[in-house]
Amino acid sequence: MKVCIIGMGLIGGSMALALREKGIASAVIGVDANPLHRQQALELGLADEMRELDAAVAEAGLVILAVPVNAVGELLRQILPQVNRQVIMDTGSTKQQVCASANACVNRNRFVATHPMWGTEHSGPAAAVANAFVNKAAVICNKEQSDPDAVALTERIYTALGMHLLYMEAAAHDLHAAYVSHISHITSFALANTVLEKEKEEDAIFELASGGFESTVRLAKSNPAMWVPIFQQNKENVLDVLNEHISQLRKIKSCLEKENFDYLRQLIEHANEIKRILK
Amino acid sequence: MKVCIIGMGLIGGSMALALREKGIASAVIGVDANPLHRQQALELGLADEMRELDAAVAEAGLVILAVPVNAVGELLRQILPQVNRQVIMDTGSTKQQVCASANACVNRNRFVATHPMWGTEHSGPAAAVANAFVNKAAVICNKEQSDPDAVALTERIYTALGMHLLYMEAAAHDLHAAYVSHISHITSFALANTVLEKEKEEDAIFELASGGFESTVRLAKSNPAMWVPIFQQNKENVLDVLNEHISQLRKIKSCLEKENFDYLRQLIEHANEIKRILK
Repeated sequence: MKVCIIGMGLIGGSMALALREKGIASAVIGVDANPLHRQQALELGLADEMRELDAAVAEAGLVILAVPVNAVGELLRQILPQVNRQVIMDTGSTKQQVCASANACVNRNRFVATHPMWGTEHSGPAAAVANAFVNKAAVICNKEQSDPDAVALTERIYTALGMHLLYMEAAAHDLHAAYVSHISHITSFALANTVLEKEKEEDAIFELASGGFESTVRLAKSNPAMWVPIFQQNKENVLDVLNEHISQLRKIKSCLEKENFDYLRQLIEHANEIKRILK
Repeated sequence: MKVCIIGMGLIGGSMALALREKGIASAVIGVDANPLHRQQALELGLADEMRELDAAVAEAGLVILAVPVNAVGELLRQILPQVNRQVIMDTGSTKQQVCASANACVNRNRFVATHPMWGTEHSGPAAAVANAFVNKAAVICNKEQSDPDAVALTERIYTALGMHLLYMEAAAHDLHAAYVSHISHITSFALANTVLEKEKEEDAIFELASGGFESTVRLAKSNPAMWVPIFQQNKENVLDVLNEHISQLRKIKSCLEKENFDYLRQLIEHANEIKRILK
């Protein structure tokens, strides 16, 4: 099957590599608004050819949207009226606004809202990696609004990529994503700014930073073009989790200020329970 | 040289493995207050024998303290009066109170205050790993208060372990450690508690948690017996950094509340500058 991938960055590029390796894509037709990314996608062998949007969609059996979430709605309004047999799927980190946009389009039933839960802090075609997605979760949202054959194709793709499938309503997805992904990025951005703001002797950071700091601050390298729209679309859930997170930090702060180290120990013991969940 | 290691946990155990592998320790004499850890240290081959404190110190050429930082002062008061030729070094994550304790002891000059900047979120003898410490920084504090031969021995050890040496005043160490290590642990503990508090459907966390969440929350598995004393001893610096961190989170919160997504993008772009420092 010819696969059209719109957005040849971290996710689109990694998807291109995986779909070809698994024999699902006989050819990858790339679409990208950025001329440099078009060139890189060809040079890196992610796409067989780069085309304009309408021509690429017309030729493909499957269209994958791998663009920032604020670009998905407009693309659906452009693409869905053109399709009948094709399947359109997205890969974005928020699902409620995407599904709302899709619901306002003709041929909504050819669209499947999905979120493969994998990523790195890097972006662009050069960030694409082989064997991404393996052992991660792929969420399919509101599947009753998509044609069964369209859902079946996305299931076959994610299973071939080594992912396990989860089915959720879009609203539940966005709530869970705020907890297990979006808040981690916010804490990491804030941590980077904390250290950059206060620590003027940058050599000391560089020399002393051990594994702990690197892992908590790694996500702060993530691309704002991707993350601002995610926070914008998932604002209510993210604010809810962020308020709780600030309140948890203030509890720790209060323990230090009042020298209540027994309670601090209890808070850390409670945090240790994350071991039950994450091995 | 016979090496006495007091505290056969993550750091002491990993140090035992490395010192023997590098041919620096002809034998490791372990000391540990925990009977289970004494047994495990022998079973895992970390120590050749486990002894009582005074007997172990008397027999060793080098004594390494690898205990929670709140236990270092009392150990120095016990050990330093017994030594003359031996070198005593600690490995703790705070240095000001340790140095203050040492300064009040006889034979202060036989003690070297050090901090090998390596660790994991695991603890106990079973957490010890071979080839720890490689390519990390080892900080030696207030070295002018230690005999040159004692400093030279610690330098030889950390260099043999593949570490690069940094020299700092204890006060500067504690400030930098608050930025590059202690705050990361606090954000991680608070993030774990945020998610545990708010997210009742634990299966969803387990299924959805991707690499980003795992890396930011990993440190939340860390041992309170080690970390509460660190926060206690470095309270002022940690509070200072924590206040800045909460203020950075509130800036992001305010952007979301006011839908000021231009400023949010600027904050994220600023956070991205951490790339300059951490490759």
